[in-house]
Amino acid sequence: MKLYNYFRSSASYRVRIVASLKGLSYEYVSINLMRGESRTPAYEALNPQGRVPALEDNGRMLAQSLAICEYLEETHPNPPLLPSDPVSRARVRAIALAVACEIHPIGGGRAQAYLGRVLKASEDQRAEWGRHWTTEGFRAIEAMLTGSPETGRFCHGDTPTLADAFLVPQVYNAERSGVDMTLFPAIRRICQECAKLETFDRARPERQPDAV
Amino acid sequence: MKLYNYFRSSASYRVRIVASLKGLSYEYVSINLMRGESRTPAYEALNPQGRVPALEDNGRMLAQSLAICEYLEETHPNPPLLPSDPVSRARVRAIALAVACEIHPIGGGRAQAYLGRVLKASEDQRAEWGRHWTTEGFRAIEAMLTGSPETGRFCHGDTPTLADAFLVPQVYNAERSGVDMTLFPAIRRICQECAKLETFDRARPERQPDAV
Repeated sequence: MKLYNYFRSSASYRVRIVASLKGLSYEYVSINLMRGESRTPAYEALNPQGRVPALEDNGRMLAQSLAICEYLEETHPNPPLLPSDPVSRARVRAIALAVACEIHPIGGGRAQAYLGRVLKASEDQRAEWGRHWTTEGFRAIEAMLTGSPETGRFCHGDTPTLADAFLVPQVYNAERSGVDMTLFPAIRRICQECAKLETFDRARPERQPDAV
Repeated sequence: MKLYNYFRSSASYRVRIVASLKGLSYEYVSINLMRGESRTPAYEALNPQGRVPALEDNGRMLAQSLAICEYLEETHPNPPLLPSDPVSRARVRAIALAVACEIHPIGGGRAQAYLGRVLKASEDQRAEWGRHWTTEGFRAIEAMLTGSPETGRFCHGDTPTLADAFLVPQVYNAERSGVDMTLFPAIRRICQECAKLETFDRARPERQPDAV
């Protein structure tokens, strides 16, 4: 397997966590987003979405981090990162999607770039935009976590799931951009549990070959 | 089952299509987004995300449209809306996620409301923002569709999948907001195929009990 990714891309980080939890090795192909390498014709020929991560496996190219994680779950079922019953699976996916749909795309770099370029938003306004959507999104996730008896040491029970693999990278982004994480004690506690595991640590941006 | 939804919510529309394709009936609970009914304490007690759709089944409340669709796929497997092999499943999910992550949250109403309220963007600027992200997202999906031999009558092969259930509602939004759909002949052709089916027609916003 080849993982096209970038150390600081939080969507890439999700897939690195899942691969690490499943004990999978892969060739690390760095696509430097700061240098626009995801929008080159050569990369877009591989992945028309022009985004990272993308996973190449047996000559097939897969896009979208959640689709890649579900693929790894189906092709490498152990350890499982989704529970076995459908209601619990829906809960884990809903938490992952609350990150992947409600926070990351809207608060992220592409939206902020447009705000600056087209709407002439200041740097402060762009940063505040990012913090706003992260705070809104985390508020909903915090309520999902504190309101459910299924929350355990991790987002769902006492072993890591896809929900944790999506939450941890978003918290990493949030801390870098100055979001007040004291508002979210359940999210913080779970991230601290994840940080104790070598499987999560290995996937951290700072430990990737293209980290600067 | 009870589906908390709103006729014009495109995320609700996705779940209606999936339920219709699977021949499932449900109680339609209207949450009027124009009157802010998704952000009331009563609704947030049911669904902490304060969003539609949400599905209540056997007393359990499920959030996030893709999580709900995967749940319906797992609990009502026929007809299948995901292919059987993992690579094809990943492709279908990637198209659905290209709608659910790259277009809908960023171009949608909440982001536009913030642009107006905080950044004082004009109505024209907000509409152009929406069209920009839809056009960008559709460009990637069009490339995924035209670049693959697996595209058939529908997004993946000759029977509908989750990809079609996500694409059709986004095209409905795009047409209402004036996106130039002539740029995307493959997307348009597939939506025309879907429109021929009574299963898709039944899920249309105009046919819902709260349509105005």
